Formats: sequence, C-alpha cells, structure tokens
Amino acid sequence: MGKNDHFLDLFFNPKSVAVVGASRNQETVNYFLVSNLVNLGFPGKVYPVNPNATEIMGLKAYPRVTSIEDSVELAVISVPARITLDIVRDCVAKKVKGITIIAGGFSETGTQGRKIQDEIHRLLQKNGIRAIGPNALSPINSANNFIVGFRPTSKLPQGGLSFIFQSGLYQPRLEWLLNEFHLNIAKLIDLGNKMDINEVDALEYLAQDKDTTVIAMHLESVAGDARKFMRIMKEITPTKPVIVLKSGRTPAGAKAASSHTAAIIRSSDAVVDAALKQSGAIRVSGLDEFFDLAKAFEYLPLPQSNRVAITSYSGGEGVFTTDCAHLQGLEPAELSTETHKKLSEVFPPWPIPINPFDTGVAGQFHSFDVVNRFVEALVDDPNVDCAAVQVGIPPQLAASSTGDQLLKPYTDLIARGKPVTVWGMDPAFSTSMTKDLEACRIPFYPSAERAVRALGALWRYAKLRGHKQV
Amino acid sequence: MGKNDHFLDLFFNPKSVAVVGASRNQETVNYFLVSNLVNLGFPGKVYPVNPNATEIMGLKAYPRVTSIEDSVELAVISVPARITLDIVRDCVAKKVKGITIIAGGFSETGTQGRKIQDEIHRLLQKNGIRAIGPNALSPINSANNFIVGFRPTSKLPQGGLSFIFQSGLYQPRLEWLLNEFHLNIAKLIDLGNKMDINEVDALEYLAQDKDTTVIAMHLESVAGDARKFMRIMKEITPTKPVIVLKSGRTPAGAKAASSHTAAIIRSSDAVVDAALKQSGAIRVSGLDEFFDLAKAFEYLPLPQSNRVAITSYSGGEGVFTTDCAHLQGLEPAELSTETHKKLSEVFPPWPIPINPFDTGVAGQFHSFDVVNRFVEALVDDPNVDCAAVQVGIPPQLAASSTGDQLLKPYTDLIARGKPVTVWGMDPAFSTSMTKDLEACRIPFYPSAERAVRALGALWRYAKLRGHKQV
Repeated sequence: MGKNDHFLDLFFNPKSVAVVGASRNQETVNYFLVSNLVNLGFPGKVYPVNPNATEIMGLKAYPRVTSIEDSVELAVISVPARITLDIVRDCVAKKVKGITIIAGGFSETGTQGRKIQDEIHRLLQKNGIRAIGPNALSPINSANNFIVGFRPTSKLPQGGLSFIFQSGLYQPRLEWLLNEFHLNIAKLIDLGNKMDINEVDALEYLAQDKDTTVIAMHLESVAGDARKFMRIMKEITPTKPVIVLKSGRTPAGAKAASSHTAAIIRSSDAVVDAALKQSGAIRVSGLDEFFDLAKAFEYLPLPQSNRVAITSYSGGEGVFTTDCAHLQGLEPAELSTETHKKLSEVFPPWPIPINPFDTGVAGQFHSFDVVNRFVEALVDDPNVDCAAVQVGIPPQLAASSTGDQLLKPYTDLIARGKPVTVWGMDPAFSTSMTKDLEACRIPFYPSAERAVRALGALWRYAKLRGHKQV
Repeated sequence: MGKNDHFLDLFFNPKSVAVVGASRNQETVNYFLVSNLVNLGFPGKVYPVNPNATEIMGLKAYPRVTSIEDSVELAVISVPARITLDIVRDCVAKKVKGITIIAGGFSETGTQGRKIQDEIHRLLQKNGIRAIGPNALSPINSANNFIVGFRPTSKLPQGGLSFIFQSGLYQPRLEWLLNEFHLNIAKLIDLGNKMDINEVDALEYLAQDKDTTVIAMHLESVAGDARKFMRIMKEITPTKPVIVLKSGRTPAGAKAASSHTAAIIRSSDAVVDAALKQSGAIRVSGLDEFFDLAKAFEYLPLPQSNRVAITSYSGGEGVFTTDCAHLQGLEPAELSTETHKKLSEVFPPWPIPINPFDTGVAGQFHSFDVVNRFVEALVDDPNVDCAAVQVGIPPQLAASSTGDQLLKPYTDLIARGKPVTVWGMDPAFSTSMTKDLEACRIPFYPSAERAVRALGALWRYAKLRGHKQV
C-alpha cells in the first residue's frame, strides 16, 4: 500500500526506527515521539534511545544507537544541535539508511550552526545516508500510523491528501486539522533546513505515490533544482492537484524566512507566481485557504462546468454569496422548470427567485427542511454543476431529523459528480453535525465566502483540465 | 443614555410596544419577538397582539392594536403581507408613532407586492408615522434590552458598536456574534426594503448617538440621497470609524439583490468603491472581515504607527504572519536593546531573531510562558506600536497558569495605547480562554491572517487621522 521505489519511501515505511532523545517525561515534547507510535499502533519496531532510561512506554530503551541489537532503518534524532553530530556518527556505525533531524540550531543560526550542519551533511553523503531536516518535524504516514510529532495525536484519518511543509507550522494544529477539521491524509513531510532532502525530492516522491491524490505544499524557498521542480509540477498537476502556499513572499517575510530555516529566497514573488501559474499549481495566499482547498480537493469531484446553485437562510446572505461566487468565476445556474416545479410547493404565496434560494423566507411558510428539498431538486437538474448551501436547522427542530434524512440529498449530489460545499448558521455551528457531514465527504466551512472559494478553486482546476464553461 | 432628538430614537427607546403576530408557539419565529423582551427585561410596556390568545409569556394579549387600553408608541408587525395593511390601519387609528414591518412579500415580489407597499407608505406618510421595513428585522438597543428578533438571544453585551443591515443576514448568527464572538453592541437596525427609513437616516442617527463609537454597515443599495449619505459619512468618519460591506457588487449579486429587497443598484461597484474611499469609510469585501474589523475597532485603541511585533509557536508561522503584516501596511518593529536583554534569558543557546519571535524554539529550552515574557517586554519598548500574538499553552501546562498571569501583559500593552490581536494554536482554540481574553478586550481571531488584517485596518484608519508612519 503506497510503496514505491523512490528513496524517500524508506522514511514513510521504515521497518525499524530508533528514536534518539525519547523521553519518559510527559511535560516534554519528546515524550510524544514514542507515545504516538505506541498509541497509534505503528507496526514497525521502535527503539527508544535515552542513556537515562531502561524503558519508555513499555519499550526497552537503549543508551546509544549502537547498543540496539537489531538493525535500524531509520533514526529520528531529537537532541540539541551540539550533540547531534555524535549521534549521527553512531548512526553511521549502525548503518542506518535514513535520518530525520528535528532540532533547530543549525544553518539558520549563523556560521557556527552552519559549520556543524555541513559536517553532518558530509558525513552522511560519504556513507550514502539520506536525511530530512535539520529543523524538521516529520514524516507522517497514515497507512501504517508512522508519525514523528511533538503533540498527542489521537488518530490519523486515511485519505488521499499529502502535505509538504517547510516548517513545523502545521504542528500546533495537527490534531485539530485531522480530528476536528477532518482532513484525510496519506503522507506528510516537513523539510526544515533542507540540508539534503528538499522540495523537489518530496514532490517527485508524492507524484509517484499511489496513496496520494492531492498535494498541498508550503514553501519558503526552492532549494533544489528549480527547473526539475517545475517540470515535475507540470507533469503532475493534470492528474494530481497541487496547492501551494509560498511564504516569505514579501521583503519582510523573506528576511524572517532566512533566519528561520536559512531559506534563501532567490526569486521575486512575481516570478514565483508566474512560474507556479504556468505549471498548473494552485497558488493560495493564506493558511485558511490552504487547508480549505486541501479539504475540498480531497473530498469532492470536479464540477463539469461553473453553474452554481446557492441557498441561504436569508436573502441578504444569498446576495453576498452570489457576489462571492461571481468573483470566483462561478455563475448562478438557471434552474430547470422541473426544479421550479419541485420547489413551488415550499414557496411562500408569492413568486420568489430560486437561485439564490432564500430558505429563510420559504421556511417561514413551510418547515425548515426546505433546504433539503432544494438540494434534492438539484441532483437531477441538468443546469446545475455545483452547489453552495447554508445548512443548519433551528435547535427546536433538530431532534426530529435524523442524519440520513439530512445528508442523503448531499451525497446524491456528490455521487452525480456535482461538488457541494456547505456552511452553517454561524461559524461555530454544531460540532456533531459538522462531523456527520464530513464523514460523508461534504466539506463544511465556517462562512459562505470560504465555502464558495473552495468551489471556485475546484472549477478553475477543472477548467485547466479541459472542462468547459457553459 | 444614548437618547437624542433624531426621529429614529423612538424606534430604539419606545416606552410602549405592540407586537402584532406574537405567538405562544415556541416552534415559530414569532414566539421570540415577545420572549426575548420578557427574558432580557426590556423595561418598556409590551402588548402582544394575537386574536387567538389572551396571554403570552405572562403578558395580557390583545385581539387588535385598537383594543389596547393605553397608548402605544411603537408597533412591531409580523404578519403576512396581505393582512399588514389592515394592521397598519389599526395603528393609524391608535396613533402609534412608529412601525416596524417584518414580513416579506412586498416590493421585492413584483407589482402586486409593490402596490400594497405603496398603499401602506401613503397611509403612513399622510398620518406622519415613520416606518422601518418592510422585510426588516430590527431594531436592537443594548441600553434597554429592546430587541426585535426571531431567535432566542441570551444577552445583549453593551458596547460602542452599532450595526446597520439591509437584510436579516445577521439574524442566524446573532447569538453567536454576541455571546461567542463577543461583540459589544450599542444599537442595530435592519432596513429591509427601505420603504420609508433608509441608510441615510440610520447613518445620521448613529452619527449623533452617544452610545455608538463604531459603525458597521451592510448595504445592498443606496436608496436615499446619495450626496447627503456621503456628506454624513465624511463628517462622521474622522471620529467614528464606519466599516462598510457593500453586497450586490457583481452583476449576479446585483440581480439577486433586486429580487431580495427590491434594491436598485444604480452605481457600478467601482463608483461605490471610489466614493466610499473618499469619504473615509473602511470598505470590506467579506462577512468574516466585516465582523473581525467591527470587533477590533470596538475593542482596541489605534496604533501610533505601523511597527508590529509578532510572535508565534513556529518559525514558519512567523514568516507567514510577517508576510501578512507587510501586505497590510505594517512592518516588523526593530525591537529595542532593552527588549533583547529582557528576552535573552529565554533564548535557546544560539542567537535567534526576536521579531518575528519563535516562541516554539524558545519554549523548547524554557517554559512555554515565553510568549508572555515577549508580550511583557513590548509594553515599554518605544519601537513597538502594535502586536500580533499566537496564544495558547500546551494542555499539560494550562492548569498551572491563572487567567490574571496570562492576560496582564496584554492589558498593559493596550493600556499603553498599543493594540494587540491574538490567534490560537488552532482555529477552535479553547473557548474558555477566548472568553477570558475577550472579557479583557483582547480580540481573538481564528488565524494569523485575520489577527493581522484587523491590526492593519486599525493602522490604515489611524493614518487617515494623521498618525505617521515611522
């Protein structure tokens, strides 16, 4: 499952892992390096390395990498920079195949740090050992529950989304992203200072990875071969959408990036932008958008064209949402006569426009399930390619509706190849309803603008792949 | 409190209110028209009018407006359009001074509806009665807990923020906005079809209103005198910021608006944009931004200049946040030598940049309260005008910190006239911590980009008022 011949595969599917710096102290981040592997049931062998412990999380601990009896494929090193070189020497002696170096304190800190990093790099190259980092917290593979992380992770929901990060900015929100925002992931790699393995390797690997259907990439710089990077990008984007968040794009941000992962920003943002556009990558400007689009592309089919149906609990929100849709390249669908007929019985006693459909007005005259009647009608409507729906029923009615009843029209729509995104009455909405929706791959967003932005991105990508505007 | 001589004041401070269409049935929206007034303790007299009830929420109910023994200042009418004219005749007979018409079904529905609306309008004009609506759900006044609403509202937190809406799009999220997003409001008016009272009246009234320090306005069209509107806007913006969300700004949106509140969009969006800019209004493009900025302006002082201090739990997020800041017209502050000195003891054993400050790296070597040490140091730093801070402490440490300890540096900063906005480890963050923060007027946002966008808006408004860029 997800195996391929690329050298990076070792980092995602190691048979045996030494965790150097593993801790028994739950108040340190290093505790979670081993606890996550044990709690999530990673099937490979795990060897905690800590000279002051004999056992960690029920596993035998070793004073040094070289004291482990069996062979070790991968070493995860989480000790201060100044002693990392010694650990690496042990890893060379132990003939490990790959190393992840987590700690910072290397090239990003100046001459002294760079010197240590260069020495480690030379030693590894000489011995044919590949390395992620330093200053990187990864990888993660949902297929075997392999995870290198600094916080407790309760579950790795499997899916087609793979991430490339340049820094640990995902880490504080990982648990939230997976188990509350409901991203379904294949793999994640954080590259850090990119001493050896860089974004080109990561992209190349995920391009070949069978488990990966969507790639979301956070970059501060291109450290590798820029031509190769663009070539792979061009090859991959027609079949796997690649969402790119490039930071360090302003002078102030670039300066911050160089002191953070020693990233050297060689190109102006306009050049990066043009290159990404040409390659078919989907560039985003914010973190919210980055994760919003990642979810949409992983959950949903692509629309056949750009005709959107919109419904909301107030006319005003319908107008606003229609504006958002237009700005995203979507246009209100002219709903069919059949749909008009189906909906006419929930109309108030005067003619109302049905796209955007004002659920609120209709709901004052009929029950609040009009929103579902609307979505139901879209399934067979040949004039509708996608839908944006404000969901939610008043608390007093919630008890009388079951999940199935509520969600079937949406899943029917998706089954017809019509993507639908939803938002709630308020940004918080009901956690349990959000969970039900997303378990059925109906993505929930905290606002109309974000729900529509996600649809817009799907449409623009579909258009690049030859889907025609009607 | 908040009284002024404007005719609109009657709608916010009525001594007596008839609620026509009041219901005993909790499953209908009309139930909440009376229940909110009773539960929130509105001190004026409330007369439910319903021919099928003798009592509603403990109040004597009347079959008709004319059967109420005492005088009635304001009538809130929530009955279908076709019988509204009869009710209005009763109100004329009763000599009410003002009317709010909630129901839709008037000019927005075509010729027939417009005819009824015109007839009502003539009747009211002839008798000198002013009216909000039809198709409008308002007003709200937090000073006396007067509220016209379709959903249960648990509290009206008092503050300086007043809203003008053209539609009920605020209604489904009102409870969330007030009691979870923590907006502190003065007044709210929803204008609907603007048969009589329009946005010019509303703006003029709030310009004079002593309780109102910030105005947030949602518009689909300008129905009144556009010159007067711009003149008032120009007069008011130097002392009261006015945030404007104009929807119906795309062809598709404008079409939707015309069938929703019969709004006639007379000007292109570019014209509206130029006029608003010239008037000093703060135009926003989304609902998230609308409410985000409303909160920032109500909570915070204006920055003296544009030098921002940033801290985050990962270097990557610091880079991203710095980009966002630059794009908002803010620049990273060069922190003082004094600040460097104060922070040096929480540094890891290598030099790190302190703006953006990487709390995560520092936190690996010291306790996680480094973020507070950072904010503390900014209070006296003469090079810092404002700050954006990622807050949050790992769960295992949360218990050992008290609210006061956590929040004092932030309130000190604000007391010095330095606005600070915060975001969390993840968009959901801890509800209780958000509540504590916002009770101290430290605005919390679900992401760095939104926290920084709010600061940027404060800075640009300050600049218009003569604050200088350093």
